[in-house]
Amino acid sequence: MPARSDVRPAPKDERLDLEPRIKLWVEKDGLLVLSDFRVQLLQHVGETGSLAEAAERMGLSYRRAWGKVREIERNLGRRLVDSEAGGAGGGGSRLTPDGERLVALYRRFRLAMEGDLAKEFRDLFKQ
Amino acid sequence: MPARSDVRPAPKDERLDLEPRIKLWVEKDGLLVLSDFRVQLLQHVGETGSLAEAAERMGLSYRRAWGKVREIERNLGRRLVDSEAGGAGGGGSRLTPDGERLVALYRRFRLAMEGDLAKEFRDLFKQ
Repeated sequence: MPARSDVRPAPKDERLDLEPRIKLWVEKDGLLVLSDFRVQLLQHVGETGSLAEAAERMGLSYRRAWGKVREIERNLGRRLVDSEAGGAGGGGSRLTPDGERLVALYRRFRLAMEGDLAKEFRDLFKQ
Repeated sequence: MPARSDVRPAPKDERLDLEPRIKLWVEKDGLLVLSDFRVQLLQHVGETGSLAEAAERMGLSYRRAWGKVREIERNLGRRLVDSEAGGAGGGGSRLTPDGERLVALYRRFRLAMEGDLAKEFRDLFKQ
């Protein structure tokens, strides 16, 4: 029985099982501002209302989380987190409007790029 | 004189001067196969017909370039470079058809993703 002409062989690179990967970040003046890690930290601050809690979720010390937030703000030139007095575990923290906005934008940016990655790779490598 | 309603202020993040960055690579079974660096090395082999010359263009030792090519091939499970006998600087090298194809596909993939990066970032952050 002859091969059916409507049954095409699997595209060559499907057999190769290649997987595209992407790393995204955002810089200002060559300095790192937003990345998956940084935005995750900021998002935890927004969700928990506490930098100490956000640090714990990220497996970071409070000091390191605090330093990371300040580094992002310094590189960006904007406040992203407002903290009330109280020190570690004491006062609460919340995202500023700039912080809320950048977290939301970065997450949409990341989702859009993941969609583009899958589409471009499929279009080029699997056909 | 009242502000003209058709003159909108510069979008907020244009003033932030943010720059999106991307790193791409391709894995197979969790192992690195293609990246800018690896594809550049393969492309130099194709252009020069010599792994020694390709290594020099990349600032690599011949031994290291050779090891890198073999690592890519091992991770991929395909030959990408054919070398004639002659050892370092002796015999010529050229890309196999698989090598030619993957170099071309990766470069188009990278260009497409750079275009998508600029577009998605502009759409989200600059409006």
